[in-house]
Amino acid sequence: MREDAKDPQRHAARMERKRAVMEERRSRAQQDRGVLLVLTGSGKGKSSSALGMVARTLGHGRTAGVMQFIKGRQATGEEAFFRDQPGVDWQVMGEGFTWETADRERDVAAAQAAWRAARGWLCEQGPSLVVLDELCTVLRYEYLELGEVLDDLSRRPYGQHVVVTGRYAPQPLIDAADTVSEIASARHAFEAGVRAQPGIEW
Amino acid sequence: MREDAKDPQRHAARMERKRAVMEERRSRAQQDRGVLLVLTGSGKGKSSSALGMVARTLGHGRTAGVMQFIKGRQATGEEAFFRDQPGVDWQVMGEGFTWETADRERDVAAAQAAWRAARGWLCEQGPSLVVLDELCTVLRYEYLELGEVLDDLSRRPYGQHVVVTGRYAPQPLIDAADTVSEIASARHAFEAGVRAQPGIEW
Repeated sequence: MREDAKDPQRHAARMERKRAVMEERRSRAQQDRGVLLVLTGSGKGKSSSALGMVARTLGHGRTAGVMQFIKGRQATGEEAFFRDQPGVDWQVMGEGFTWETADRERDVAAAQAAWRAARGWLCEQGPSLVVLDELCTVLRYEYLELGEVLDDLSRRPYGQHVVVTGRYAPQPLIDAADTVSEIASARHAFEAGVRAQPGIEW
Repeated sequence: MREDAKDPQRHAARMERKRAVMEERRSRAQQDRGVLLVLTGSGKGKSSSALGMVARTLGHGRTAGVMQFIKGRQATGEEAFFRDQPGVDWQVMGEGFTWETADRERDVAAAQAAWRAARGWLCEQGPSLVVLDELCTVLRYEYLELGEVLDDLSRRPYGQHVVVTGRYAPQPLIDAADTVSEIASARHAFEAGVRAQPGIEW
């Protein structure tokens, strides 16, 4: 913040410059189409951001399909809240974290069944927004073929939005995305001994 | 991904090691208390993540207060969706982006009125989760005294969660936070000419 920030005239001039920059940027971005978003990195906020976009989508009277590829708990706040909302198709892939099952064949079968269900959303009759929560994790374990997933995503309808979350997004997925956020953890309460809090982490 | 990833025995051993690490970490994080989260950086996902935590909170039968310190549009999906949800107190600070008003005195007055309202939530009778959306932006323009804001936050009830969003989080706020995510933009569809999409950006 510069020293002159509180001077009303200079403030007005600064805001006018900012307004002009925003206006110019907006004038260059006039295309409407479905976007592929990837939210990756080790920080807090990937899945919760996808959930926020579900809320926004419903607020516009549109529909959302959510596939949770990995679910760490039996009863999450997000599932309790969204599962029965009109316009939401909420699905959960398998049984708990993969490192709690340690049965690769079963996990692969569950991932492939989940992908078949999610792929069914990628069509003209599908929801406006498709959330593929923790898909990156499933791809990292090679439970699904990345090439097949990318092919299916590329064939979705022109106006459909897709949000993919999870650590370690593979580079070809990043290359295919329209918007990519890399969420770094600068600090996490967990490291200070605070366990995952209801309403925040689940 | 290592080459042995698809070998079932090695996979099981790897998952078992991962499970043990997670278990050990969980055993060290047993404290329950309200956390202060800061979501900053220039990437997509700060406000939408806060909205996702509102949904999670409601899913646990808890309550949320949301103060939007900066609102860029007249009718957002999040406001349409959340404003009338039971358990939500939804408030919006002023009139549009600050660079569109360019009247510093009016903005300061609006920010201070908004802070008085938000501060009213930071008490035992207040909501379980308080979202201070774009507070960082308001602090950056020095519309509010950072010291006063930090004092008020530090005096909130022990179990209350607060999420603060916005670019350029000031260092003292980061220092006070329990969890800090720095959301970097690796790419944004806007730069490719796609305008802000309903359900995604608003």
